[in-house]
Amino acid sequence: MSENLFDALNPRERLLMGPGPSTVPARILKAIGSPTLGHLDPQYIEYMDQTCEMIRRVYQTQNPLTFPVSGTGMAGMETVVSNLLEQGDEAIVMINGVFGGRMKDMMQRCGATVHTVEVPWGDTFTLQHFEDAVKQFPAAKMLAVVHAETSTGALQDLAGVGDVVHQAGMLLAVDAVTSIGGHDLQVDQWGIDAIYSGTQKCLACPPGLSPVSFSAKAIEVIEARKAPCQSWYLDVSMLKNYYTGSGGRAYHHTAPINMVYALREALQIVLEEGLEQRFERHRQMHLLLRKGLEELGLQYIPKQSLHTLNCVSVPDVIDEAKVRQRLLHEFDIEIGGGLGVFAGKAWRIGLMGHSATEKNVTTLLAALKKCL
Amino acid sequence: MSENLFDALNPRERLLMGPGPSTVPARILKAIGSPTLGHLDPQYIEYMDQTCEMIRRVYQTQNPLTFPVSGTGMAGMETVVSNLLEQGDEAIVMINGVFGGRMKDMMQRCGATVHTVEVPWGDTFTLQHFEDAVKQFPAAKMLAVVHAETSTGALQDLAGVGDVVHQAGMLLAVDAVTSIGGHDLQVDQWGIDAIYSGTQKCLACPPGLSPVSFSAKAIEVIEARKAPCQSWYLDVSMLKNYYTGSGGRAYHHTAPINMVYALREALQIVLEEGLEQRFERHRQMHLLLRKGLEELGLQYIPKQSLHTLNCVSVPDVIDEAKVRQRLLHEFDIEIGGGLGVFAGKAWRIGLMGHSATEKNVTTLLAALKKCL
Repeated sequence: MSENLFDALNPRERLLMGPGPSTVPARILKAIGSPTLGHLDPQYIEYMDQTCEMIRRVYQTQNPLTFPVSGTGMAGMETVVSNLLEQGDEAIVMINGVFGGRMKDMMQRCGATVHTVEVPWGDTFTLQHFEDAVKQFPAAKMLAVVHAETSTGALQDLAGVGDVVHQAGMLLAVDAVTSIGGHDLQVDQWGIDAIYSGTQKCLACPPGLSPVSFSAKAIEVIEARKAPCQSWYLDVSMLKNYYTGSGGRAYHHTAPINMVYALREALQIVLEEGLEQRFERHRQMHLLLRKGLEELGLQYIPKQSLHTLNCVSVPDVIDEAKVRQRLLHEFDIEIGGGLGVFAGKAWRIGLMGHSATEKNVTTLLAALKKCL
Repeated sequence: MSENLFDALNPRERLLMGPGPSTVPARILKAIGSPTLGHLDPQYIEYMDQTCEMIRRVYQTQNPLTFPVSGTGMAGMETVVSNLLEQGDEAIVMINGVFGGRMKDMMQRCGATVHTVEVPWGDTFTLQHFEDAVKQFPAAKMLAVVHAETSTGALQDLAGVGDVVHQAGMLLAVDAVTSIGGHDLQVDQWGIDAIYSGTQKCLACPPGLSPVSFSAKAIEVIEARKAPCQSWYLDVSMLKNYYTGSGGRAYHHTAPINMVYALREALQIVLEEGLEQRFERHRQMHLLLRKGLEELGLQYIPKQSLHTLNCVSVPDVIDEAKVRQRLLHEFDIEIGGGLGVFAGKAWRIGLMGHSATEKNVTTLLAALKKCL
C-alpha cells in the first residue's frame, strides 16, 4: 500500500440475508449518524435509560439490571459467563452447535469445571435432558443453553426449563443472539436469570452492542463472589452504577454513544410494530421461504427451525461457495455458509428484522433459482 | 414510564471540549451512517484492512498485528493486559493518575503480582524512575505506563524508556488513549511493544473502538503463554486470524461494521491533514487556550501539560459543577470535571481533533468568562 490515501467510503447496498448482520433500515442509519453527545450528558443519560427500558420490554422482563454491553454479542456472552462464574465453580452447558461450545470455552477460562450435555448439531433438547442434567451434576451453579443456535438454525423450547433449573438451585443463562426481536422471548415468565443477545440480527441494528439482563438472583450470586470478575471491562458490579445508579452515574468507560442511538431507534421500531406482530411476520416469512426452498429441493437441517435463520443442506453436486459468491456479486444478496461441522455443506439464510419481508424472500428465491 | 413510545432521537449539537468524546465532524457522522455490509463481505474486509493500515501510519509502526478492538479504550487496556499477563507473572505499573491505577486493577485480575511506582497525580516520571523500577523488580515481564493521563492532563515523555525496559528483558506497554492523533506517538521508534488508545479523543470519532498494536516480541510472549488468555472476546491469538489472516478470515465475532466505517473516515481525515500539521495545530491551540485560561487566573495542574487535555485547578470560591452546568445549558459547551483526587477541584478542557480550533477556543474562553 502506498502513502496515498484510500478511496472515499462507499459501501454497496447489499441485501443482508445471512446469519447477521441483517439489513439496517434508513431510520437507524440516520440515527447512528446523529451528533455525538458526551457520555455523562443529561440528554444522553436519558436516551440510555430509555434504551434500557425498551430492552426490558423486548425481553419481557422487569429486571432493573438490563443494559447494552459495550461490545458485540460475544462480549455479552462473556459478560454473563465471567460475572456468574469464578475459579472452583461448576457449570452445565447444553451443546448443540457452535455457540454452546463457545460458552464452554469461556466457562473454562473462568476456571470453572464444565459439564456438557450434547445432542447432534441441529437437534434440540427435551425437558428430560434438562432434568437429567441437573440430577447428574447437582453441584453446578448455573445451566447455560442457547435459545436460537445461529450455527444450526435450531430453536430451543425453553418452556419449563427455568423451573427445572431453579428447583435444582441453579441459575439459568440463555443465549438469545438470534432470537431477540424475532422470536417470543419471555425472560421473566421463563425464569431466565441471565441473558445476552446481539443488535445486528432481528433488531436490524448495526453490530456493536449486546443487550443483557440479570435477575435479582443472578445479582445476589454476583454480589457473593469470592474474587472480583476477571474482566474489568465487563464487571457488572461496576457497570450497574453507570446503568442503574440512582445516586448519579459513575464513569466506568465511555459508552459507544452513537451505537446506543442506533439501538434506541431499532428498539423504537420494534415496539412500534409490536412484539406479537413482529414475531408473526417472521413466522409468515419463514413459511414463505421454506415453501420456496423446498420447491427448489433444499432440505432444512434442524427439526425445529428458527423463523429467523433458515439452515438448509446443500446437495453435494452444488458448489455452495460459488453460489453464495454469485448471489453476492450478481445480485448484491448475502447469505451465509455453514459453520463448524456444517462448513461447506449448508446455507444459512437469515430472515431478520428489516430483511424479513415478502419482497426480499421473493427476490432471494428468484436469484437463488438462477444460480442453481 | 408508560407503554407509550419515546420521542424521536434529537441530540443537541454540543461543542465537546471535555476529556472525550470530542466533537465528531459531519464527514464521520455521514460515514458511520453508511449501509451496513456483512463482516465477511470482501468489500468490508478491504475497508478493515485499510483501517488497520491507517492505524499503523498514525501509530508510526510497521507492526502487522495492528487493529481496532471491538470495544472502547478500556477494552483496549484489557486486551493488552490480559494477553500479555497470566497467573504467576510479575508486572510493573507506573501510576500518576486514574488510568495507571486501572491497569494495576486489571493486572491483578489476571493473577499477576503487580509492583507500582507512584508519583503525585499531575507529575510525570523521569528516565531515572524507569531505570530504578526495572532494577528494583527485575522479574517483571512488562512495564506499563500512561502516555497521556486523561485524569490529570500530564504528558509522559517516553524517549529512552523503551531501551531501559528492553535492556531489562521486559515488554513496554503504553496507554495512548488521549494522545493518538494529537501528540507525536512513535510506536516503533520508542520501542513500544503493546499500545492501546480510543477513537473518541483526538481522532474525533465516536467512542466504540480501541486501536491496538503489538510488536513481534509481544506476539512471542502471547504465543508462549502457559494458559489461554482469560478473555475469549479479547484473545489476540484468535483475533489475529480475523485481522491479519492470510489464509482467509476466520469468523471470531461480528465486527462493529459501522464503527469501523467511522474510524476509517477519521483516520483518512488525520492523514489528509498530516501528522506533523495535526500535532502542531493541537500545540498552537493549547498555547492559545493556556494564555486565555491564565488570564482568567486559572492555573494548570501538571508541569508537563498535554496539548490535547488541559487540566486546571478551580479556586475554592468557584462552584465548579455549577459553571460546567451553565456552560452546558446556556452555551451547549461540554467541559469535564476533575476525576479521582481532583474531583470537584479541577476542570479538564479537551482540545481534541475537530474541537481544537481557534474558533472553539475563543468561544469557550468567552463563555467561561461569562460564567465565572
